Amino acid sequence: MPEFRKDPILGRWVIISTDRGKRPSSFGNLPKQEDPKMCPFCSGNEASTPPEVLAYRKSGSEQNKPGWFLRVISNKYPALRIEGSLDREPKGIYDKMNGIGAHEVIIENPDHSKDLADLSLEEIKRVLWAYRERALDLQRDRRFKYILIFKNHGDAAGASLEHTHSQLIATPIIPMKVADEIAGAKRYYDFKERCIFCDIIRQEISDKERIVSDYGDFISFEPYASRFPFETWLMPKQHISHLVDFSDDIFIYLAEALKDTLNRIRVALNNPPFNYILHTAPTGNEYNNLYHWHIEIIPKLTKIAGFEWGSGFYINPTLPEDAAAFMREVDATHAEKLFNAHVSV
Amino acid sequence: MPEFRKDPILGRWVIISTDRGKRPSSFGNLPKQEDPKMCPFCSGNEASTPPEVLAYRKSGSEQNKPGWFLRVISNKYPALRIEGSLDREPKGIYDKMNGIGAHEVIIENPDHSKDLADLSLEEIKRVLWAYRERALDLQRDRRFKYILIFKNHGDAAGASLEHTHSQLIATPIIPMKVADEIAGAKRYYDFKERCIFCDIIRQEISDKERIVSDYGDFISFEPYASRFPFETWLMPKQHISHLVDFSDDIFIYLAEALKDTLNRIRVALNNPPFNYILHTAPTGNEYNNLYHWHIEIIPKLTKIAGFEWGSGFYINPTLPEDAAAFMREVDATHAEKLFNAHVSV
Repeated sequence: MPEFRKDPILGRWVIISTDRGKRPSSFGNLPKQEDPKMCPFCSGNEASTPPEVLAYRKSGSEQNKPGWFLRVISNKYPALRIEGSLDREPKGIYDKMNGIGAHEVIIENPDHSKDLADLSLEEIKRVLWAYRERALDLQRDRRFKYILIFKNHGDAAGASLEHTHSQLIATPIIPMKVADEIAGAKRYYDFKERCIFCDIIRQEISDKERIVSDYGDFISFEPYASRFPFETWLMPKQHISHLVDFSDDIFIYLAEALKDTLNRIRVALNNPPFNYILHTAPTGNEYNNLYHWHIEIIPKLTKIAGFEWGSGFYINPTLPEDAAAFMREVDATHAEKLFNAHVSV
Repeated sequence: MPEFRKDPILGRWVIISTDRGKRPSSFGNLPKQEDPKMCPFCSGNEASTPPEVLAYRKSGSEQNKPGWFLRVISNKYPALRIEGSLDREPKGIYDKMNGIGAHEVIIENPDHSKDLADLSLEEIKRVLWAYRERALDLQRDRRFKYILIFKNHGDAAGASLEHTHSQLIATPIIPMKVADEIAGAKRYYDFKERCIFCDIIRQEISDKERIVSDYGDFISFEPYASRFPFETWLMPKQHISHLVDFSDDIFIYLAEALKDTLNRIRVALNNPPFNYILHTAPTGNEYNNLYHWHIEIIPKLTKIAGFEWGSGFYINPTLPEDAAAFMREVDATHAEKLFNAHVSV
């Protein structure tokens, strides 16, 4: 059974999950990239994954069989377990809690050769729609305070399978970074009675120099205090705290903005590994005034992260304004020609 | 000129330092490992580094010439600049500050073939002594609030040169992780009127199961809420807040504990890349009651850090108790035979 343990100094909860597989002796022996034909996320190999919790399929096709456009499954090596009660308990000066939560995988497309940015707008919209549908379902479970959706792209960014997918983790605690963001946004809100993210958008639109693209309903930009080169945020201009609160008709515009932004990163940086994380308010409506939904995309270009996650002290060798200028110049429409069909199946 | 920029949401300062060299077009083209004969940190190549700010040398040898046992130089590609005044200024809702600071490199030994853990106790003591001497010197500069000393070992941990070295960054701000640690330690101190680190040591000695080694004056252990597999902390039992406050005679015991701990990590994990960070109180004596000096060593074993530094949400696949048991079993004395002379010069 996985467990949450609380760092007594920082108050940060960590998941200790030995089910995730790696035993002491196995470090340094990461499995090689799988044979695409054996890929558990490919159509035809449904039996090698846990059963689907959601799928969009051709009408008439059977559950856990081919014929799907998108599948959501439980993670085969889950960091958290869905069954049980929370049970906080002390361990001397320490605190622990059962590792309750959900850990799901969104298989974005059956085609092994395509990355998210290669998909059509309708297909990307479907991915976002699946995020929303799973979040709506899981937030009904009162044990869960936060639903974290993210994507690791590329080996160096932590993707253990190449086939395009995202992950969702629902947790009974609010991740520390999110708690810090809320605390900061609340400080500002208490002082100004305005959402800090809305004010950031205003300033970015007025300054222009860090904007990557203005999509009308969304903007992408390089944040003023970017930690990493080409760190890019995608944000709705409308103040909205949860993906589930967007009106239905806006999803296609979000798909368009996300596809364009990912393709710009792909062309500018030659298909780098990256992580993106959906930044959403905790479940419930407590922080709706002050928290502004957005996506943070972080290309993994430098290797200096080790010291930096240790100290919280980031050194960014690239001016965000330079990165934004570079990203604006890019012809994103060429991305698919350049990078598609990187694997022939 | 580098600059500090403040994240308006989190209040975190980031260093934007384009002098660090990488321009947009150069990503993905990291230079190959240098030819050892051309290594700027080797004896004989002193002219290819900035002049030394400190050196321990054979008596009679000349500055910036061979004959040294240890050299401290300014970083050739400094993240911060020593000259100038701080000058905070607003930029709309944002805040910036001149990138004032010191960025130095401690070349631990002239021998290219040796890692820190290969050095004799006297040589390691000399490294720690140099840390102390540089910290003492730099803390006299009233502009500096924090002196951060760290080591990146191995390419994957961000070391750009193989030759064994550490780095020092003196900054006019307290890094966010340190500020968070101090805030947490203060919460505990306000409640208990005791140092939380001292209480952690008490509990670890009593629990035994996370101890790697008890060195008498120091202990090494796997923290209860370890973020990473084999994350290892080395801590003095005596409550002390700064390296500069240790009595002279204790340095040899710290050298012994550090060498043994690094060698256990080396044997247990087959010479992994790692980072270590000296965790010290900010300059001055304000936090001396509540902050406890220690070293955090983080082997870089997993690739999943990307999502994790984005969310602050860590998933550790290894029980700290299992890692500690594994580390206790290791015969650290074999490390030098196993890993020494990995380069013949």
